[in-house]
Amino acid sequence: MSEPLFEKIALIGIGLVGGSIALAARRGGLARKIVAATRSAETAATANRLKLTDHCGTDLAAACEGADLVIVCTPVGACGEVARVIGPKLKAGCIVSDVGSVKQAVVAAMQPHLPPGVHFVPAHPVAGTENSGPEAGFAELFDGRWTILTPLPDSDPAAVAKLETFWKGLGSLVDKLDPAHHDRILAITSHLPHLIAYTIVGTADDLGGHLNAEVLRFAAGGFRDFTRIAASDPTMWRDVFMNNREAVLEVLQRFQEDLFYLQRAIRWGEGDKLFELFTRTREIRRALIHLNQA
Amino acid sequence: MSEPLFEKIALIGIGLVGGSIALAARRGGLARKIVAATRSAETAATANRLKLTDHCGTDLAAACEGADLVIVCTPVGACGEVARVIGPKLKAGCIVSDVGSVKQAVVAAMQPHLPPGVHFVPAHPVAGTENSGPEAGFAELFDGRWTILTPLPDSDPAAVAKLETFWKGLGSLVDKLDPAHHDRILAITSHLPHLIAYTIVGTADDLGGHLNAEVLRFAAGGFRDFTRIAASDPTMWRDVFMNNREAVLEVLQRFQEDLFYLQRAIRWGEGDKLFELFTRTREIRRALIHLNQA
Repeated sequence: MSEPLFEKIALIGIGLVGGSIALAARRGGLARKIVAATRSAETAATANRLKLTDHCGTDLAAACEGADLVIVCTPVGACGEVARVIGPKLKAGCIVSDVGSVKQAVVAAMQPHLPPGVHFVPAHPVAGTENSGPEAGFAELFDGRWTILTPLPDSDPAAVAKLETFWKGLGSLVDKLDPAHHDRILAITSHLPHLIAYTIVGTADDLGGHLNAEVLRFAAGGFRDFTRIAASDPTMWRDVFMNNREAVLEVLQRFQEDLFYLQRAIRWGEGDKLFELFTRTREIRRALIHLNQA
Repeated sequence: MSEPLFEKIALIGIGLVGGSIALAARRGGLARKIVAATRSAETAATANRLKLTDHCGTDLAAACEGADLVIVCTPVGACGEVARVIGPKLKAGCIVSDVGSVKQAVVAAMQPHLPPGVHFVPAHPVAGTENSGPEAGFAELFDGRWTILTPLPDSDPAAVAKLETFWKGLGSLVDKLDPAHHDRILAITSHLPHLIAYTIVGTADDLGGHLNAEVLRFAAGGFRDFTRIAASDPTMWRDVFMNNREAVLEVLQRFQEDLFYLQRAIRWGEGDKLFELFTRTREIRRALIHLNQA
């Protein structure tokens, strides 16, 4: 085996994403040692039982000692506090990253706590499932999926390149965006769809009473997909919406306008307006399939 | 081989659903002869090339002559006109059905054109894919999926029972609802999710320009599912919304209220409101999975 990319990786948080990083890093032979830490003794015990890492403890700062890569894998709302706790124990030259679905807020929360000499390179693997917790992790999660690095203006190019090599070693495709641009793109492609799915499943449930069993029973393709999306981790997604507020509110406003346009078309029997949109969205799907095959 | 359930089945319209009925009926040995008719000579030629039925022509009325089961498999907006055309050629005792995603409007459109002595039993197989046309049909489409029969107060019980046997023979589970109740349930479980998916994909596309390629490229789980739903047949879905207007507008109103509630919670940083909903929707998903396994 050739020299691994990192001597010691520390993962702070060991749920779906942290667990999957651990398994994929081991699969790729990317580190000599992989440790994790989580505040929950129960989660740590599960991670140890599953042997996700060499060791998983509950002392976040201790886990980071001597690590040359630290990845914060908690919900984004916890990133700032984690950085505050681990900051003093980070060794010079260490690369610090995260996996948050929001980037500007994470940068703002973490950066003030990171000592000079540490290389901060935020990242977001655009991959996940509706499952959460250490049992949900699997080595293939990132295979063929995009990971977006959002380097800062003063990020060390060598550290960025090394993190890119790491993510490719986990099976991922890698691209770079600036944090604000990332947050706008993801508000559309991920945050808004999740909010809509959560809403519609809640609305269906509220229409409940005697309807309820039948709503679930006859859940057709559309609704079934929505329930899957709406089963995603509540803490993670609350934090996403709390931390990407401006971008989400902006696309939500656009979405509401467009929905009212269709609502009005339905009310007034303007089928041509519906047909026009439905034809256009079919083309978008084809473009997406074409893009992924190319 | 035992005696088939029907001597001759005529399918009016031979797209995804009509084609799949033909293939599944043959698989199940449910008819001695299966014919189809469609207004489009091109579609008929494709159906004949694929050998979906014994014969597919373009004369709707002629196809129905001597049939003991006629299923109208066109978009719901065409059902009334089809009934007007085929009505005079239907033989006494023939069962007439359809596959529309809307039931009250179809009943209102078709019933006046059906002669006495014909048994009208509307039906809705809750199954489909985002593909359409005769090439999209496959014999397994209905396996394990629900078909809802919506018999009318004066429907002949023997005809209803025979159609139920037919749909079970196609691989489907069968339940019965009254047409109005059906339309309300489906407005929630199917029509609203489709409308939302169409809207969000359109909104994302409109945000276009330089965003566009990246929106498609980083299309995460959520958005990708939505684009699939939003690739469904435009004519079929326009007709659904035009013909289930009241029920769709009602659930859309409820959805909008709920979405504004979340929008406001995001604006004011009320994470607990989001967390509460997200936890509840996760439970609904579990209930759905449990129900399907039971």
